[in-house]
Amino acid sequence: MTADRQQLIDTITDRVVERLNAAECGCQVAPAEEHHLRAMVENGACRLACGEKARTLPRDLAATIDHTQLKPDADEATIRELCAEAKEFGFASVCVQPTWVALCAELLRGSAVEVCTVIGFPHGANLSDTKAFEARRAVEQGATEVDMVINVGQLKSRNYSYVFHDIEGVVQATGGRACTKVILETTLLTDDEKAAACALAKEACADYVKTSTGFAGGGATVDDVALMRRVVGSTLGVKASGGVRDRETAQAMIDAGANRLGASAGVKIVQGGQGSAGY
Amino acid sequence: MTADRQQLIDTITDRVVERLNAAECGCQVAPAEEHHLRAMVENGACRLACGEKARTLPRDLAATIDHTQLKPDADEATIRELCAEAKEFGFASVCVQPTWVALCAELLRGSAVEVCTVIGFPHGANLSDTKAFEARRAVEQGATEVDMVINVGQLKSRNYSYVFHDIEGVVQATGGRACTKVILETTLLTDDEKAAACALAKEACADYVKTSTGFAGGGATVDDVALMRRVVGSTLGVKASGGVRDRETAQAMIDAGANRLGASAGVKIVQGGQGSAGY
Repeated sequence: MTADRQQLIDTITDRVVERLNAAECGCQVAPAEEHHLRAMVENGACRLACGEKARTLPRDLAATIDHTQLKPDADEATIRELCAEAKEFGFASVCVQPTWVALCAELLRGSAVEVCTVIGFPHGANLSDTKAFEARRAVEQGATEVDMVINVGQLKSRNYSYVFHDIEGVVQATGGRACTKVILETTLLTDDEKAAACALAKEACADYVKTSTGFAGGGATVDDVALMRRVVGSTLGVKASGGVRDRETAQAMIDAGANRLGASAGVKIVQGGQGSAGY
Repeated sequence: MTADRQQLIDTITDRVVERLNAAECGCQVAPAEEHHLRAMVENGACRLACGEKARTLPRDLAATIDHTQLKPDADEATIRELCAEAKEFGFASVCVQPTWVALCAELLRGSAVEVCTVIGFPHGANLSDTKAFEARRAVEQGATEVDMVINVGQLKSRNYSYVFHDIEGVVQATGGRACTKVILETTLLTDDEKAAACALAKEACADYVKTSTGFAGGGATVDDVALMRRVVGSTLGVKASGGVRDRETAQAMIDAGANRLGASAGVKIVQGGQGSAGY
């Protein structure tokens, strides 16, 4: 590792430690300085994959939704149905376990629906190189979005350099061919830890931060979405997931700052409204 | 792939399909024929790592217990305490997430406590080569036991060849340096699926079958342990995990055929008895 690179990491770590040691969490992280950004680009990590998509809110509710089926016992027939629904309703993506990526890529070829999968899911406690391997293989199989779980245990142990590299490894493994969302698993974190995780995800050039796996209890809350939006600013996306089961909740998440929603109830959500334009 | 190899897999698949199509599940799987075993050995998979350990019941209750801490938010201090307890009480292993394997291997060096980790945990819906990669890296970091989760969705889709290769890939990735336990996640399976999973694990030369991750609801039951023992016979181990929280339950699992227990309450279990010899 170069000295610049090490300095960058040290700086990030110092910044996060400073935040955690502050008496109150204002959740305002300064924009990365220019030389930090340059170092990121020089090291190969950059926000190439999602671009505008990660920063803006689609005009149509369906296009904000990752149509999600992550149950470990979901079978092939269930996944086929998920893809058919995604095409019919115009969802942003299908979000499936890695074992189903190749099938979804085949079924969705030629459509506007992205193939989203999960990395280190749902615990995030894998080795960093396993997550990077999993992300690279997912992209090879046709995934265009990868939702990785942060290493919660290392975050809680204040091993920030580890967490930074863990995220960066996945971002780089996609080779700019998929966007990376970082799942914080907010229900397990303090507000300071959520802010630190957002800062680390931003520094590591992820495209989105995301609230929840849906498998740890809890789920997206308006307060968490607002906190995450405050920390990442307008250059990253925010995905609300876990417990988003109706149109009212979906709208509340969007109002709080989310521009992507993860939901298994996407069909119900888009059919739940009364013909209003847009949302 | 050689013709013999393909024939072997076809035979296994036929056998499992036959079982599933039977009107009643007797849970009796014939021992693998000699030429099957020979083909397995020729292909590099063999039960080298655990040997007798996988087939026998230790004389001491503590030595049957994998002292387990798999919560995603467990921090470094928690893992250090787990290792200290494992040495103090003489547990068979510590069972931890991959991110903690290197630390545990360092802390337990020179002791009799094994380092057990989990692969594709807890959903098992990763690509097979990701599981194999994760297992190889775990062994490199010092794991001597790997508990992999079966691909439940592919099992339910009756893609038996996929499930067989998924298990075999992990067994082979250990290179004979760690024993492999196959987690069925029994709470998600029918009895026929449990029997099929056991048959596939046995054919793929795993060392143990294991009931549960502890993260899908449900957990080990006496009936499931007995079923698994009937299917795998005496040549594989059976590990009961999920909900084993006291000495009475531990004893019931052993009486039903388990020779290893996964528990986060190991200290309570071994301290719970009244000084009787052995169990």
